[in-house]
Amino acid sequence: MTASTPLDRRLLRVLGGEPLLPPPIWLMRQAGRYLPEYRATRAQAGSFLDLCYNPALAAEVTLQPIRRYGFDAAILFSDILVVPDALGQSVSFREGEGPRLDPLQTPADLSRLRADATRPKFDRVFETVARLRQDLPRETTLIGFCGAPWTVATYMVAGRGTPDQADARLWAYRDRASFQALVDLLCDVSIDYLSGQVRAGAEVLQIFDSWAGSLPDAEFARWVLAPTQRLVTALKGRHPSIPIIGFPRGAGLKLASYVAATGVDGVSCDTSIPLAVMRDELNMRVTVQGNLDPLLLVIGGAALAARVREILGALSSRRFIFNLGHGILPETPPETVAALVDLVRGQRSQ
Amino acid sequence: MTASTPLDRRLLRVLGGEPLLPPPIWLMRQAGRYLPEYRATRAQAGSFLDLCYNPALAAEVTLQPIRRYGFDAAILFSDILVVPDALGQSVSFREGEGPRLDPLQTPADLSRLRADATRPKFDRVFETVARLRQDLPRETTLIGFCGAPWTVATYMVAGRGTPDQADARLWAYRDRASFQALVDLLCDVSIDYLSGQVRAGAEVLQIFDSWAGSLPDAEFARWVLAPTQRLVTALKGRHPSIPIIGFPRGAGLKLASYVAATGVDGVSCDTSIPLAVMRDELNMRVTVQGNLDPLLLVIGGAALAARVREILGALSSRRFIFNLGHGILPETPPETVAALVDLVRGQRSQ
Repeated sequence: MTASTPLDRRLLRVLGGEPLLPPPIWLMRQAGRYLPEYRATRAQAGSFLDLCYNPALAAEVTLQPIRRYGFDAAILFSDILVVPDALGQSVSFREGEGPRLDPLQTPADLSRLRADATRPKFDRVFETVARLRQDLPRETTLIGFCGAPWTVATYMVAGRGTPDQADARLWAYRDRASFQALVDLLCDVSIDYLSGQVRAGAEVLQIFDSWAGSLPDAEFARWVLAPTQRLVTALKGRHPSIPIIGFPRGAGLKLASYVAATGVDGVSCDTSIPLAVMRDELNMRVTVQGNLDPLLLVIGGAALAARVREILGALSSRRFIFNLGHGILPETPPETVAALVDLVRGQRSQ
Repeated sequence: MTASTPLDRRLLRVLGGEPLLPPPIWLMRQAGRYLPEYRATRAQAGSFLDLCYNPALAAEVTLQPIRRYGFDAAILFSDILVVPDALGQSVSFREGEGPRLDPLQTPADLSRLRADATRPKFDRVFETVARLRQDLPRETTLIGFCGAPWTVATYMVAGRGTPDQADARLWAYRDRASFQALVDLLCDVSIDYLSGQVRAGAEVLQIFDSWAGSLPDAEFARWVLAPTQRLVTALKGRHPSIPIIGFPRGAGLKLASYVAATGVDGVSCDTSIPLAVMRDELNMRVTVQGNLDPLLLVIGGAALAARVREILGALSSRRFIFNLGHGILPETPPETVAALVDLVRGQRSQ
């Protein structure tokens, strides 16, 4: 840890309840394929997971967007599927096709997962975090993360990303006990994984529940609310001052119950969440983050500027973190990202 | 039109504001591949669109689930892409791959669409409706439908179904005026199309906005609320007593504004909408319809029964139409559909 005080960490101040003008800004997938320097570093690594497990290269790609844009936060470069990979499930990434896992097809397959075997791979991630905490500018907050148990389970059961998460939902309906065992295992491992990131220097945690949106209310309570609450409670028990941001993408009408039930300090809002709901219903309870449409970063120009003004008009005097509603798209021109940062920070002089 | 009175049409009574126990029931995609008799009729037609444009065969497949299950409503067997097809855009359906259209790629491509050329194809659909009104049991309500302009436009622009509707959203951001022209054209044509269905005998209309969920608030207002309001206003002007159900799938936190802004009589709720929201926020204003997870119809058994009890417990004394949150899946066993109807109607004797 550096000797910096919380006062120069704008993201921490907002998560602590202090509105800031201009709002702090970082972008989901700010390190990635849209940056030529990322593509150059990526070419030095073997597979995508090799990059995630290489502390020098993973730290380098994490730092690239900070050097270029001076974002208020850096997010550890990694992937939510590091957890199943560390548990011994085969994970690979095919260019343009997304991840492939050897799917869990029956409850008996759960015995293939080895919670006691995760440490060597997790340690490499923790080393990346430690390097970053040393190399980042004092004012830049370091965010660690993991996938939420439900979302990670959907990949483990289907063997890939799925539009409707039908395989995991069917398993959960057919055999609740064995699906609960999988989710419980993911809770245990994710708590250790995030706790290790905090010990190594992460100052904020984000929990990505990218596939939370498809679940009916009772299933959402069971597979999103309860496991997330368990993660938050355990992590706050071990690290009382760690701020946690939840991102239950697509949760829509269940977002307020997510905020109330889980105990997160901040909630990241996808593009579909109305600004009025972020400002009125959610901001009463937590810091809100989001929710610019990533397509506007592909286009730039007047359409981007108009929407940024709408978002800032609704939220800039609140405890608010400017971000996208989903990750940066690979076809984003780096210049529009620079234009966005100027638009958001230009608020300062208004 | 038969001489039946509204009194034996349970769907019409509920849409008129009268709670009924047991609630009326019909299921989205109740005519379809899960039924062996559908597959037999389908084999007699050439392409999928040939089936949609064949009044005898389209009426037959519409009637099949009514004969089997005695649903309270029949929905015209057709497809939302009949509208672009009738406008002259090439549409085809490939088995297992979904629809393919010759995409509209530039504003100049809009000139390929011929609003004055739709009549011959629409007339075949109207003939199906007229046959159905004659052949359906007196107590069965006939539902006509179309796709909402936004959803139909997403297919026309991308040339296929897309997970994020990026092509249409990009067009709308880049060139709002030409996208507005496309949506306006679809409004005009859809009003004529639905009005023709009512004149032929449709007693309720449903507007399917399957891809409403991806839009940020300002875009949702522009491309979902305004066109739907225009459709509802025009149709109520021509047919003052026609009930209209809207289905903005994925609208989530924007569902209440959809109900308030559009003037629909009923709102169909996808599986993600909490039962408490259907009962408290939405049912105050309109009849609610939904929202059983179609995966539970694949499984059946105790998981299905438990969720049906939850839904009926929350909604059965309200103005409520039992339905799915999305269409029946092709792998659904016909017996679980029969079991569902028994579960819902079993309420009668409780």
